[in-house]
Amino acid sequence: MTMGYWLQALSVLTFSALLCAVRAGGQGQPALNLMPVPADLQMGSGSLRMDASFSVALTGHAEARLDRALQRFEQQLFKQTAIPLGPKSPGTSTATLTIHTDHASKDIQELGEDESYLLEVTPEGAKLTAPTPLGTMHGLQTFLQLVEVSPEGFDVPAVKINDRPRFPWRGLMIDSGRHFIPLDVLRKNLDGLEAVKMNVFHWHLSENQGFRVESKKFPKLHELGSDHLYYTQDEVRDLIAYARDRGIRVVPEFDMPGHSTAWFVGYPELASGPGPYQIERRWGVFDPAMDPTNEKTYKFLDELVAEMAKLFPDHFFHIGGDEVNGKQWDANARIQEFKKAHDLKDNAALQSHFSKKVQAIVTKHGKAVVGWDEVFVPGVPKEVVIQSWRGQAALAQAAQQSYRGILSNGYYIDLGWSAARHYANDPLGGAGANLTPDQQKFVLGGESTMWSEYVNAENIDSRIWPRNAAIAERLWSPQNVTDVASMYARLDVIGTRLEWLGLTHRSYNRKMLQRIAGAASPEEFAALRTLADAIEPVKDYTREKLAPSEPLSTTPMNRLVDAIPLESDAARRFGELVDKFLAAGCRDAQLESRLRAKLTAWRDNDANFQALAQRSFLVKEGADASTALSSLGTTGLAMLEAIAKDAPAPDTWKAQQTAAIAEIQKPKGQLLIVSAAAVQKLVDATASVGGCAGNK
Amino acid sequence: MTMGYWLQALSVLTFSALLCAVRAGGQGQPALNLMPVPADLQMGSGSLRMDASFSVALTGHAEARLDRALQRFEQQLFKQTAIPLGPKSPGTSTATLTIHTDHASKDIQELGEDESYLLEVTPEGAKLTAPTPLGTMHGLQTFLQLVEVSPEGFDVPAVKINDRPRFPWRGLMIDSGRHFIPLDVLRKNLDGLEAVKMNVFHWHLSENQGFRVESKKFPKLHELGSDHLYYTQDEVRDLIAYARDRGIRVVPEFDMPGHSTAWFVGYPELASGPGPYQIERRWGVFDPAMDPTNEKTYKFLDELVAEMAKLFPDHFFHIGGDEVNGKQWDANARIQEFKKAHDLKDNAALQSHFSKKVQAIVTKHGKAVVGWDEVFVPGVPKEVVIQSWRGQAALAQAAQQSYRGILSNGYYIDLGWSAARHYANDPLGGAGANLTPDQQKFVLGGESTMWSEYVNAENIDSRIWPRNAAIAERLWSPQNVTDVASMYARLDVIGTRLEWLGLTHRSYNRKMLQRIAGAASPEEFAALRTLADAIEPVKDYTREKLAPSEPLSTTPMNRLVDAIPLESDAARRFGELVDKFLAAGCRDAQLESRLRAKLTAWRDNDANFQALAQRSFLVKEGADASTALSSLGTTGLAMLEAIAKDAPAPDTWKAQQTAAIAEIQKPKGQLLIVSAAAVQKLVDATASVGGCAGNK
Repeated sequence: MTMGYWLQALSVLTFSALLCAVRAGGQGQPALNLMPVPADLQMGSGSLRMDASFSVALTGHAEARLDRALQRFEQQLFKQTAIPLGPKSPGTSTATLTIHTDHASKDIQELGEDESYLLEVTPEGAKLTAPTPLGTMHGLQTFLQLVEVSPEGFDVPAVKINDRPRFPWRGLMIDSGRHFIPLDVLRKNLDGLEAVKMNVFHWHLSENQGFRVESKKFPKLHELGSDHLYYTQDEVRDLIAYARDRGIRVVPEFDMPGHSTAWFVGYPELASGPGPYQIERRWGVFDPAMDPTNEKTYKFLDELVAEMAKLFPDHFFHIGGDEVNGKQWDANARIQEFKKAHDLKDNAALQSHFSKKVQAIVTKHGKAVVGWDEVFVPGVPKEVVIQSWRGQAALAQAAQQSYRGILSNGYYIDLGWSAARHYANDPLGGAGANLTPDQQKFVLGGESTMWSEYVNAENIDSRIWPRNAAIAERLWSPQNVTDVASMYARLDVIGTRLEWLGLTHRSYNRKMLQRIAGAASPEEFAALRTLADAIEPVKDYTREKLAPSEPLSTTPMNRLVDAIPLESDAARRFGELVDKFLAAGCRDAQLESRLRAKLTAWRDNDANFQALAQRSFLVKEGADASTALSSLGTTGLAMLEAIAKDAPAPDTWKAQQTAAIAEIQKPKGQLLIVSAAAVQKLVDATASVGGCAGNK
Repeated sequence: MTMGYWLQALSVLTFSALLCAVRAGGQGQPALNLMPVPADLQMGSGSLRMDASFSVALTGHAEARLDRALQRFEQQLFKQTAIPLGPKSPGTSTATLTIHTDHASKDIQELGEDESYLLEVTPEGAKLTAPTPLGTMHGLQTFLQLVEVSPEGFDVPAVKINDRPRFPWRGLMIDSGRHFIPLDVLRKNLDGLEAVKMNVFHWHLSENQGFRVESKKFPKLHELGSDHLYYTQDEVRDLIAYARDRGIRVVPEFDMPGHSTAWFVGYPELASGPGPYQIERRWGVFDPAMDPTNEKTYKFLDELVAEMAKLFPDHFFHIGGDEVNGKQWDANARIQEFKKAHDLKDNAALQSHFSKKVQAIVTKHGKAVVGWDEVFVPGVPKEVVIQSWRGQAALAQAAQQSYRGILSNGYYIDLGWSAARHYANDPLGGAGANLTPDQQKFVLGGESTMWSEYVNAENIDSRIWPRNAAIAERLWSPQNVTDVASMYARLDVIGTRLEWLGLTHRSYNRKMLQRIAGAASPEEFAALRTLADAIEPVKDYTREKLAPSEPLSTTPMNRLVDAIPLESDAARRFGELVDKFLAAGCRDAQLESRLRAKLTAWRDNDANFQALAQRSFLVKEGADASTALSSLGTTGLAMLEAIAKDAPAPDTWKAQQTAAIAEIQKPKGQLLIVSAAAVQKLVDATASVGGCAGNK
């Protein structure tokens, strides 16, 4: 096992080196744009040509799911190449790609099933073998990622890939509570998860703002608690089948005892404070919480869990448990009495009392509980899985006590972090690195979380993709696959391929910008795009803080901040350019010219932008940011001038520039000029000893 | 009637003038981006604000179709604004928009029904009234087009529009025979037709390459003649209902006696030559034709028409009739005998014999015949409608003899013409202009035709839209609405709005270019885009002629020529810029600088392009075009230098430049450098008396 690990690590290192070499060269043989990077890969020589004669044969274990997977595979291959693949029924000996699946996987997909596969491609043909359909499906996705346009046609390089995941729990959570997310959007995201080999869809189904599943037992939950935006039980079953077809488990979450205002609209008697209740329209943490002292609460939950445990076949059942502020409990004399009578010294103890009883209910209905950090209290049953929004230390602490955990801290993809930052976040990093190998096994993996305050059907894909693919790689690939440049290069390619699946993470942007612009001249629209490409929404929870009066679920999501990606490719590339320029002692004329072109474009962008801003209130919101971007261009150009001189710039002048950039860096409304930091590096270079000026 | 016409014309003139004024200014009040331009429009003052309180009330005639139209309207309004419109049931007195429909339209939509509407918008509210649901639906589309982003929000300008179509037959033909076009693509195109007020979908359903409708009577037609790519009868009924919901008639076409190889695969006995037959894979005109001398042919057609006349409720039934080359007839001794025996002196007479019998069959089943020009022969029944691919003269000739006609010549949107050229083509232009008012009434309107040799589900939208909207305007708006600049400005806006309906005429382009590029650096991809933006596919039927061995229905449609739009916006704008520059005596420094920037970008584009071409065979196809574009940039820059001199350029030098441009203008593979003509204008300006050099 240990030996195998080293061999595996070695081949990955070779592979990473190869990727870098090919990338750096930029020419010649095709890069292997695989994401996630496989556990083990060996390059062969030559390649397999894809043409109309391409055919596939399935052998070994047979099931309808595999036939459907093959159909999807062929459709996707057609999308990637546009080569018509006529219907063929080849024999095993003549098929271009033969697939052998050894045996069935579990009827209800389980945590930790074998997902491995072996894919061998030679110029003559390809062979995919896997113990179970889960591995077969992963292998098909790898094959699709190997198909590249070449100087002569569409080719698959000769390669031998022996692949398996590092963690058994690789998930994406989508919050359907705050904004309802339609089924077609969820389906496309499941397609995306399949493409990057994630295997858990965690479905956050109830929130203060909505209870999103039909309950036949308690119909007022969805009838009064959802604005009629909910999933019927048939739809839920269909989605689960759709996920199973893609090797993905569906874990439902019903968040309690907090985050549950929407429940109380129909059933106020569950709450700890007097009703009536309305569906919450604001964002934040609110007071209403279930009454943990009332036996009727548990009777209700017992019946609801019974219903939902049947609807959702997965073994795991998420009960939330996060962010109870305790105010309703404090305000309720009867609950205070109960605490005293039961020796519960604080609200944490009261919540623990509640959790224990709900855990018992969930266990009674045959399920294992998952809960957020808050459920991890002394004495909690070992069967409970901790999902950590707090971090690796919490997870490590749990693992030391033999509790299983899933990392979500660091994978909050709604917060606007860069893919690189998520990518650097390892479930076994930080405190996790000190765990013994046996303890490490308790860390099951991780989940990215798509909280939906600021997403809807139109822009959610852009908030998930392509960054989620970097997290998928973190959870699948060996721990030492950490080259950020390679990750971004491959992310760009995967980003394109994910669009073939129907995801809209790129195409949404132009449509939203066109709405914002209205009728604009090409020059005006280009100005809007230049700004939009250079900015990012404010990070973390700043949006609420900057505009506390705005956050309402009824606010139209038609603004610049909604239309721009969370991570600006243009800004990242500008930053890379500055770093290269500085690393080359500021002497590379070509790099200087590219920097100058970009800075000039920013400086000169404002006139057309402001003309358009006069005609559209939505463009106008970006007016300050546009002015700031223009200033940044001017400052940057001045820095290039200063650097070109052979003498260091005076300190006072440098301080002035730094102050100007500090102004530019401040949020403009809810927008950030993210390249300000890179221009600051140019400022620093005008004066620092050992910097560019010093080098000259 | 005549008086009304002049009033109407007057108001349109005013409106056109207004549009130009607003456009030319480019600032200030919003342009009215209506397409087609209404028959009569008066501007009011102020505007109606669109916000979450917006509501609609339906009054008068009620039917489920109107409810669905309203639902679509609200969905579209949400797409345009992203303002959530909660469910409301306002009274008539409180609704923002009240709609009154007077009475029902016909159960089966008929040619010439009243499609008029009156739309009045004030800052306080809006009122839409129409005699029938057809007018109501048109009025809703106009309202949607009026919604514009403004400095304060989304607004509808105060306006009074009294609108009705110029022609009663305004259609689009889609050829589902050569390439099968999936239903979802057809549905989106019907949405597009509704948006631009077209009212006929002419569905070309049978071809040498495929018989695309399920026949229960003769199942071998679709089973053997379609590669399993056909519409079931249920699907056909659904699509007809979908079209009816949008005020669109569906006219089916079964092309005979030629263009029918696919029929003969299952039923070789219908043909004039010995079988067996295979589905045709090539493009062109082929020999197989039905046997017009065999009574069994007519018995078959009688039963088939009976079945299809039931399936398609429209009063009109298209029997094709085009392009019979007669070779099978000539080669068949029995047919030659028949001709002699029946005194049919040539194959035209024989086809006429066939047509008469088929017309009788169609009439017997309660339908009126439509056929291509070829069916218009002496003695053809007056009920027959002529669809003219030959031109206005043929149509005028028919009208003079009291035959009704539809113009398609000049509306072949597959040929790659500019929108301006289609727009200039009037059903009552040319010979039609000499018709008396009574004769003019026989000209029912026109149809654009989307023949599908070089389109499939992926790029068909881009071959239809937005140019088809210009044809829609020609057929709806008063004849004197002819301002090309206004048309293009509005076409650009409508092009954006059509994408909200799900049409992919813009978004397809990036996806196809990404497939062509494979993994490319941003600079390389930009180079591919710069070339792709500047070129057009060869025009008319040149593609077949240039590569006669290629045209096969199995050829992958993944090439540059498939990915680029048929009309280059960038090239059109460059041409406009050159014209402006020349008109200003070549003295405007800003115009000169914009020209210089564009020409420089072309000149410098080739290096990155060729780097990418080394890695992708699909990019490589554009290598010659890229080199030519680079040369064009170089030549254009030299012209700017020459023009800047105060002396005319020498004739020999000018002749060299002209020769160089002539080389650039030759097709590069199947690609055209369309801006060559504009650069030639610069060449001419360097020397001509009265040109720019002379002016200096």
